[in-house]
Parts: sequence; structure tokens; C-alpha cells
Amino acid sequence: MNFNSSRSFAEELDTSDPLASYRTRFVISDPNLVYLDGNSLGRMTHASLERVRQVAEKEWGTDLIRGWNENWWEAPVRIGDKIARLVGAAPGQMVACDTVSVNLFKLAAAALALRPGRTRIVTDLLNFPSDLYILQGLVNSLGNRHTILRIGSTDGDITPDLDALAAAIDDNTALLTLSHVTFKSGYLYEMGEITELAHRHGALVLWDLSHSAGAAPVALETCNADFAIGCTYKYLNGGPGAPAFIFVRKELQQQVVSPICGWWGQNAPFAFGLDYTPAPGVARFLTGSQPILSMLAMEAALDPLLEVGMASLREKSLLLSEYLIFLSDTLLTPLGFLLGSPRNPERRGSHISLRHPEGYRINRALIEEMNVLPDFREPDNLRLGLTPLYTSFAEVWEGVERIRQAVAERRYEKYPAQRLTVT
Amino acid sequence: MNFNSSRSFAEELDTSDPLASYRTRFVISDPNLVYLDGNSLGRMTHASLERVRQVAEKEWGTDLIRGWNENWWEAPVRIGDKIARLVGAAPGQMVACDTVSVNLFKLAAAALALRPGRTRIVTDLLNFPSDLYILQGLVNSLGNRHTILRIGSTDGDITPDLDALAAAIDDNTALLTLSHVTFKSGYLYEMGEITELAHRHGALVLWDLSHSAGAAPVALETCNADFAIGCTYKYLNGGPGAPAFIFVRKELQQQVVSPICGWWGQNAPFAFGLDYTPAPGVARFLTGSQPILSMLAMEAALDPLLEVGMASLREKSLLLSEYLIFLSDTLLTPLGFLLGSPRNPERRGSHISLRHPEGYRINRALIEEMNVLPDFREPDNLRLGLTPLYTSFAEVWEGVERIRQAVAERRYEKYPAQRLTVT
Repeated sequence: MNFNSSRSFAEELDTSDPLASYRTRFVISDPNLVYLDGNSLGRMTHASLERVRQVAEKEWGTDLIRGWNENWWEAPVRIGDKIARLVGAAPGQMVACDTVSVNLFKLAAAALALRPGRTRIVTDLLNFPSDLYILQGLVNSLGNRHTILRIGSTDGDITPDLDALAAAIDDNTALLTLSHVTFKSGYLYEMGEITELAHRHGALVLWDLSHSAGAAPVALETCNADFAIGCTYKYLNGGPGAPAFIFVRKELQQQVVSPICGWWGQNAPFAFGLDYTPAPGVARFLTGSQPILSMLAMEAALDPLLEVGMASLREKSLLLSEYLIFLSDTLLTPLGFLLGSPRNPERRGSHISLRHPEGYRINRALIEEMNVLPDFREPDNLRLGLTPLYTSFAEVWEGVERIRQAVAERRYEKYPAQRLTVT
Repeated sequence: MNFNSSRSFAEELDTSDPLASYRTRFVISDPNLVYLDGNSLGRMTHASLERVRQVAEKEWGTDLIRGWNENWWEAPVRIGDKIARLVGAAPGQMVACDTVSVNLFKLAAAALALRPGRTRIVTDLLNFPSDLYILQGLVNSLGNRHTILRIGSTDGDITPDLDALAAAIDDNTALLTLSHVTFKSGYLYEMGEITELAHRHGALVLWDLSHSAGAAPVALETCNADFAIGCTYKYLNGGPGAPAFIFVRKELQQQVVSPICGWWGQNAPFAFGLDYTPAPGVARFLTGSQPILSMLAMEAALDPLLEVGMASLREKSLLLSEYLIFLSDTLLTPLGFLLGSPRNPERRGSHISLRHPEGYRINRALIEEMNVLPDFREPDNLRLGLTPLYTSFAEVWEGVERIRQAVAERRYEKYPAQRLTVT
């Protein structure tokens, strides 16, 4: 598309946007706020607000313990199946529960147990640091019999070194685990090829979908992915700290056990037997009672995503991203910004990083005085999240314009060069 | 006290109850309901309802990502310190997070790592089955180098065999872990003596406080307990599946690491360093983002408990329990009920089990047609939870009277003898 940088052009894009009306499904309490952090915490749908009221007032307040028999007990399985539709998986392979970190621990442990002779774990330095920590903690708790190979070099990498990755996966590799979309640059791995590469060596593959679910196309089954995890509070708009999800390919389910064998993953939890027998399917990766207020608020947020479907979500995401890159090239590059995300849309998720030596202070100025909420990631990434259902083209235009002002008017100079950011 | 079994006597007890007014802090949408399942899911406070509205509308809806900087990020530590006051622990030793099962896994793994030469874990068959499952899963994931010794014999035990327990703890014992109050009979372990016994052999001790926090006296520090876990949705009234808690004695904190090393337990989570360094205190046992709606609803429920304090809560709990036992002895024993809980109040938590061969069907009749909510635990326990802040003496009287009717009128006979219960 031939973009131009006028405000009226942004408005034209909104007028012809088939998803424009979905913005009204969300609570927009300050129409002047430019919210570009949906990749950290998605906006709240009116449906989630209504659902959480209902769960508290009606279900907890009135039904009390009977709520578990009504729609609470089955929630992790029911919601898992819904999320699965957004990431290319048939029912029966996903549950919603716990945190991304806990779920990664469970699956990585299960994967290592499934490849007992192998001692190598491969990942990369573009992965979310917590994923690296979880692997370190797991290896340590198992007596340091495994080594973790982390591909990549500097903190400033935008794209992984695919040759190094291919070279790292050998016949001693038990597990390859990567963020499908990396948290800084938004690089999107080609899931099918990478998974096949690992499978060729007999390694298992675990994808972290935190930055792709709901915003980038994922085809877990087509790609033969073995395991996946992800969060629901970014592009799935599930709410702060809403439960994560966990995927285990059908063919593997009977072969793996969770190291964390809680009663929710037990075959007959209410028989209260004294010995653990895993539930037949992916439910064996459940642990204990899940936070129902957060869980059901999150469930309500999935409906508009399911209505629209991943193809249309991706189309809008790409148009938003291309438009933002155009505006940045035109208006921000002259001010010292560099694109910190892949230029090839096929290799990009739904956030754009703009690098600037004063990125930290610019981020502060945007938050404190420009009513823009982006976020900042070390060392110099201003990270701008684009959420197909509620980010408008006018909002993107306004965001870039305010970034331009903050820099052109040197508003950032009054802020100290220190770290205060939060996820 | 000289009880009598008239309804007016129950009303007199309510009139002279210094905590009677606290019932108004809770949502009581059906005044005719006899709710005796607060040991599974506590009633909702008006404060929790209001707080969850506020968190959704104002904090998530309007503050968006800024909510993390306001009161969300610190919530696990802040709330941990509050719960600590109810279980006899000074600040800095407890955090609220994850599920009981996940927290038990973390601490049991940490304990085994702290006693590397020892291979025995001691527990008992009165423990909540999920706790046993977690231990089994952990031992399995560590390569079956440890053995789990489970004291006790039959499913019908009310009290543990303390001699067998003492005999089981030897110099090869790494960890002793027990439910402080057992889930079926409500037996309450003498925490100080048992902990000392284990310490004499160099073993570490981990208490599950799920059935005691908020309803029975706990003195973690006075008893030198090493570790503790517990849930918040029973007597702490935190809401369905609200996050659990985890306690690590100050002196041990620098020596232990969690097997699940998530970024929330990292020393500098926002530096996004590539290697894990544990946070200095108990916060190292945090994993990932916690469910904020559920977490903050739970926090609001703690205030009335903290206002009243454990001594008064215990006093009321004991009076409720003694009264219920009196009524049961008088009205239900002639109908075939047996007391399934210790008669000695010092050895009892805050629920009473009444055993009856038709317990399962009686429970169904109570739920389906008598507007009473108790719960049932295999093989024959009708379990009646007494929550000091909202259970009234009139409610206890009414509950026993309806149980009497359900049995005397043989109303239970129309229900099939099968299991359908939920926690």
C-alpha cells in the first residue's frame, strides 16, 4: 500500500478497516491515551469486566462451593480448547493453568525424561530471560547432568543465527526451546522448518507462544510441534497475570508425566486415592485449584478473537506494522531512530522495536507527559505493541507524532538515565 | 459451658458472641442457606467484591500496564507478610503465589537439595492426597533416589500414630511434611513437638497449613518450622482458587533455591540478564506473573481476620465446635452418626467430621433438598466446616436439625450411592 504521513490518511485507514468496530468491545476510559503496550498487558474487554462481576457476585457470592460443579472445574480444559483454536491445534491438547514459568518447567522436565540418554538443551539468547532461568533451575535441580547451549551473541541481535542453531542441534540434543516471537525485536521463527530440523535429530521442540498467540499465525499441529506454552495477558487480553496455557501434542500425551503431580492432574481426583495416576490426556499437567476470577475474566476476552479468527487478525496486524514502520522511516529515522525489528513482515510478530541511544529517557517522557504508553527494553529498545482488535491507525499516527515531538523538542532530557521500567 | 439443644439457646450464644457483627462483612445472599463448607471455599466479603470491581474497572481498565507499578508488583510480598501475621511469622518470610501443589513441589525440592546425603521423606496417610502425589512426582523426577515413608494404616484413622511417626524419623530423613490440620478428621498436630523431633535428627520440616490458616493457632516461628505452604480459599476467604502462600524460615533463605527459577524470583528482574541470580529473601520462590484479580480479591478478605486476631478467632471456633459436637452427641448419635474428629479440642482444627454409613447419600439430600452445604469425604465422612467470622450458632443448630430430619425422615434413600462430590 502507498502510505502517506498525514493524519487524514490514518483516518482513511480506520474507515476502511473491517475490524474497526471491535475497538468498541474494549474499555477505552481515556480516548487521548495512545496505548502501545498490549504486548505486555492487553486492554480489558467489556465482556471480561462483566464476567468478573458475575463470577464474584453470582457464582462465588451465591453459588459458593457449588460453583466448582457448574463451570469452574472444567475451566482449564474448556479454555485450553478455545486458545488452541487460535494457535492451530485441535481440542484435547491444551489446558489453561499456572504461570508460563511453571508450565515451561513442567514441559522441559517431561521432555528431558522422554530423552533420557541425551544431555543437551538448545535455546537462544533472544529468548525471554525467564525461560533461560527456568532451564537453568531445572538443570540444577536434576544434578547438572544437562548442558544448555544458548545460540546468539550480543544483546543487540534482531534475528537469530539460523546456521548456528542448525549446527547446535545434534543427536545428543533432548530439547530445543525458543520463543516463537522474540520479546525484544519481535523476530518470528519459522516454526515448521525449525521443528523439522530438531525432529531430524530426534530432539523434542517446545515453543513459547507468549508473544504470538492472538497476534501472529501459529500452526502447532501442521508444524508437528511437540510442546508449547504461552501467556494470556498480552494479545489474548486476559488480564493482569491471567493463567497461562500448556500444549502437548496428542501422540506424546501418554508418554509424558509432569514432575509436578498435583491432584488436578490425577486420574480420579475426587476418589482421593493415595497414589498418583496421571489423567489420560494433557490434563495431567494441571496442578492445583486455579484462580477462578482471573481465569474466567480471561475466558471472556477470547470470544472476539475467536469470532474474527487468526487470518483477519494477522492481516490487520501486518497493516498496522507496515504503517508504523513507514511513519517511523519517514518521521523518526531523521531523529536518530533505527528499526529494531525485522523488515520482512513474514519474520515479524506484532510489535515493533525502535532503537535510539536515548530510548530509556524517551520512554519516560512519553509516559510522564505525552500520554503514550509504550515500553522499554534494555539497552535501547522502545517497544511498540500493535493489537489488531483495538489499536487504530489514528492511534499509531498519534503515537509516532508524539514520539517525534518528545525527541524534536528534547523533552526526554529532563529524565535521569536509569532503569525504572516494569514489564 | 452447659449447652442445651433448644433453638433459643443458639440464639443466646449468638447474642453474647463478640464476633457476631463480623457476619455482616460477608455477602449472605440466601439467609436460609446453612453453609458449612467454608473449609473448602470461604464466603465472599463485601470488601473482596468491592476490591475486584475496583481492580478491574480502575486498575486494569484505566491504569493498564501502570497498574504493575502501583500495587500489583509488590502484591505477593505485601500479602505474604499479612498472612504471616495469622500464622505466627514475622515479615520477610512469606510470599503469596501459585498453587499449594506448586509451592509444595518447590519447597520439597529445595529441602531435599539441602540434605543431599539423605534419602528418606516422611509423611502420613492423613495428609491431603495431592501432597502425597507431589512428593511422588518429585521423587520420580529426581530419578527415584528417595523413598517416601507414609505413616498410618487405614482410611478411617482419625488420629496419627505418633509413635510410628517418631520411629520413622531417622538420621537418613531429609524431610518431614504433614498437614498441620488433616483434611478428613481435622486432627491438629502439635507443631512444636513434632518439629523438634525432626530437628533432633537433622531433618527439615514442611507444614501444610491449608486447613489451619485463619481458623487454628499456628506459631511457625515459635515452633522453628522450616517451611510451610497453604491455601487462601478456605478459612482465609480469598476466593475460588486464590493464590497460595509459601513460608521459608529466615535463617534458611540464603541456603535454598527453588527448582522453578522464574523471573519474579530473580534478583533484578527488569535488568533482563541472561543468568539467574536468586532474589535475596523468600521472594526467590516466586515464578511468574500472578493472577491479579484473584490475588487482590484475596488480599481484601484478610483485613477482618487481622482485625480480630487469631486468639479470638480460635476462641469462637472452639465454641462453635464444642456446640456442634454437643448437638451431634445429643441428636445425631442416636441416628447412627459417629464423631470422626478428635474429641480433645486442643487436637482439632475448625471442622468436624461426622461419620455415617449413608454419609454420601445424606450429603446429597442435604444439598439437594435441605439447603445445607456440607461436604463429603470418602468413605463415610460428612464434613462440617465452622468459620469463626461468619458461622453463627443458629446456623449450626439449624444445620444439625436438618441433618437429623434428612436421616430421621430417610430422605437420603432416594439418592444413588455413587460419588459426585467436588472439593
